[in-house]
Amino acid sequence: ATIAAMASRQLSETKLRRRSMSTSYRLPPLPWFGMDIGGTLTKLVYFEPSLDNAEEEREKVAHIRKYLTSNVAYGTTGLRDVYLEMPNVSFLGRSGTLHFIRFPTCSMSIFIDMAKDKNLKDLADMICATGGGAYKFESDFQSRLGMSLLKLDELECLLNGLIFLAERHPLECYYLPEPDPSRSDCVRQPYSLTRQSDCYPFLAVNIGSGVSIIAVRGPRDWNRVSGTSLGGGTFLGLCCLLTGCETFEDAIALAERGDSNKVDKLVMDIYGGDYELFGLRGDLVASSFGHMMSVDKRAEAKPEDLARATLVMLTNNIGSIARMCASTQGIDRVIFTGNFLRCNELSVRLLAHAMDYWSRGSIKALFVQHEGYLGALGSLMELVDPDSINNAYCTSESAQTASDDSQKMSSQNE
Amino acid sequence: ATIAAMASRQLSETKLRRRSMSTSYRLPPLPWFGMDIGGTLTKLVYFEPSLDNAEEEREKVAHIRKYLTSNVAYGTTGLRDVYLEMPNVSFLGRSGTLHFIRFPTCSMSIFIDMAKDKNLKDLADMICATGGGAYKFESDFQSRLGMSLLKLDELECLLNGLIFLAERHPLECYYLPEPDPSRSDCVRQPYSLTRQSDCYPFLAVNIGSGVSIIAVRGPRDWNRVSGTSLGGGTFLGLCCLLTGCETFEDAIALAERGDSNKVDKLVMDIYGGDYELFGLRGDLVASSFGHMMSVDKRAEAKPEDLARATLVMLTNNIGSIARMCASTQGIDRVIFTGNFLRCNELSVRLLAHAMDYWSRGSIKALFVQHEGYLGALGSLMELVDPDSINNAYCTSESAQTASDDSQKMSSQNE
Repeated sequence: ATIAAMASRQLSETKLRRRSMSTSYRLPPLPWFGMDIGGTLTKLVYFEPSLDNAEEEREKVAHIRKYLTSNVAYGTTGLRDVYLEMPNVSFLGRSGTLHFIRFPTCSMSIFIDMAKDKNLKDLADMICATGGGAYKFESDFQSRLGMSLLKLDELECLLNGLIFLAERHPLECYYLPEPDPSRSDCVRQPYSLTRQSDCYPFLAVNIGSGVSIIAVRGPRDWNRVSGTSLGGGTFLGLCCLLTGCETFEDAIALAERGDSNKVDKLVMDIYGGDYELFGLRGDLVASSFGHMMSVDKRAEAKPEDLARATLVMLTNNIGSIARMCASTQGIDRVIFTGNFLRCNELSVRLLAHAMDYWSRGSIKALFVQHEGYLGALGSLMELVDPDSINNAYCTSESAQTASDDSQKMSSQNE
Repeated sequence: ATIAAMASRQLSETKLRRRSMSTSYRLPPLPWFGMDIGGTLTKLVYFEPSLDNAEEEREKVAHIRKYLTSNVAYGTTGLRDVYLEMPNVSFLGRSGTLHFIRFPTCSMSIFIDMAKDKNLKDLADMICATGGGAYKFESDFQSRLGMSLLKLDELECLLNGLIFLAERHPLECYYLPEPDPSRSDCVRQPYSLTRQSDCYPFLAVNIGSGVSIIAVRGPRDWNRVSGTSLGGGTFLGLCCLLTGCETFEDAIALAERGDSNKVDKLVMDIYGGDYELFGLRGDLVASSFGHMMSVDKRAEAKPEDLARATLVMLTNNIGSIARMCASTQGIDRVIFTGNFLRCNELSVRLLAHAMDYWSRGSIKALFVQHEGYLGALGSLMELVDPDSINNAYCTSESAQTASDDSQKMSSQNE
């Protein structure tokens, strides 16, 4: 409670400082980026303005735009998630497309070289960045690129990104009406989550390398209530060790084909059936990896089974902690985010089912399409004060003003 | 809440049935055993009566006594924990020694053969047994030995065994006044926990193959509030897979020599330092096994480091869930039990430190010497109704009566 209070106080002070800064802050020059430098992945959201005012575009900016939008892979490790692309988005009074790009944080040095190569420094002297890497790599950006980072809190960015997307994209937020871990064809039902609707309170559970759990009671009323170090990094790290796989995609593909009952000890393995006194069904896991102390069982377990057991163990543990937090906080909606859920339908089904089963239907699990990019998007939104952004959306007149401001600032910088 | 209510109701009914049975129940013949057949280990508590009434002892009983007390190992897998032996214990009106024996549950078939070989059936036709195996192996005991099992709930036995020991053994329950995970010489301070003292409420966290968490508010007022499948079986299973070790003892020895920071991603690995906004210190684990997605880091990590990271991950996860349960239940004492803590000083220190650190000193972690044998001891106590046991202790006259009863029943059975 003391840590939470302290964090809450610090946060208010940070906000106050930022608000007072932002009164004199104007729209920045193109290109517009937001960056989230996590423990495993760096996420980049890039806003590509539509070219109805093509004459606005300076040559150097066009150069960056073309590089980013005409490629899907950048260097050996950067990738654009084309399936997540959002066209026709209004942002800071301009219409355009949001692009979602990621690369492993361990390739940060290559990214900085590339940014230097593309003369990013000539276009802007600051990048909005969140995640731990905004702190860790700040001096590298300064010394090697001559650019400073506007360091933003990752959880605040996550929440801002979440609400921004949910309000603009009707299919962004979804749930599984009939979650069944064993069926891969579970229907996804859209869930309306907008600032205007009665969307508060909710619990946000962000599964990145580790896990953060945030109770959100209003637009600026939230606190980090819990977390666990058993997250997506644990899944990938253990799978690499146990199966010899090299990538998250391979680990997920293995898990999808595996059978965790070859690895885990179930209640029925210990009781011979259900543990009736406490209503624990025989097919529930009693001890994750509990069979693996036996030489014979180890010989039978395939890499697929080990990957599946790792995924099931970590997903259920996160679900269980999230459910406890939701109960304690008196909250009945839990939104799961973070790149652990990227292309990981199995964990989505397991979480949805676990929340439903263990809460007897009283807690709903929600998910989002752009699960891993909320922080990067939220940091992009900090190019100007969030209040200004909302005003910019209200009328085309103010939008035009915002755009004009942008032009002024570009000129000043050139 | 519904599951808990249901379990609580079922339990009351079980108790009522047992109480009404026990009115006609008398002291059983020697030898006196209690058994706890868990998912990984079977625990056996044997009461060896002192021979001040040597003439009482029948030849066949003496045979069993000599076999058990003159050996430390039984067959290839059974072991007596001599360091836990309790001499001069009064039990059912007799004075004697409690012995603590264990063997892997996967050797149950060997145990049944041995019991047959020693003609256990001629001495008693029932064994008090708890743990899942009391259900799973019931038909084997019946068909192969001709013996029935008095099946007892494992959590009730655990609590009865705990209070029994704590009341009779002043050093049974202890805590670490200055828990420091990095120091192996932490002082153990005795903690007085008796039925007469103000010992309620407390939370019991039993770490066996999996973990059960029980809120205990009074002698017969308790319920299972939570649990996790990430327990001792997970530790041993993962260590066998990751390090090639074969036994729990080897896994613990490896963990004691290892460095988990070679395996885990810390907050400082992601932030470059502390995550100040939330008071998360740089040396906290952000992502367990998070370094292991890197080929280079995998090459550097030794088996010791992997064992240590596995132990730290599971111990901290259990500590975190236990602390959440304690907060939710408004309980400030947590007693950790179960064989995961056997000869595992490192987890004891980690749990003590984690409870103290994260609760800012408001929750105390307690431990017990006979951590893995509470259930087996509790089942031994069910040889007669617990109320009768307490009466039997009150006066030597009633003690004599109880002993006489025992003799009568022996005769009837022979």
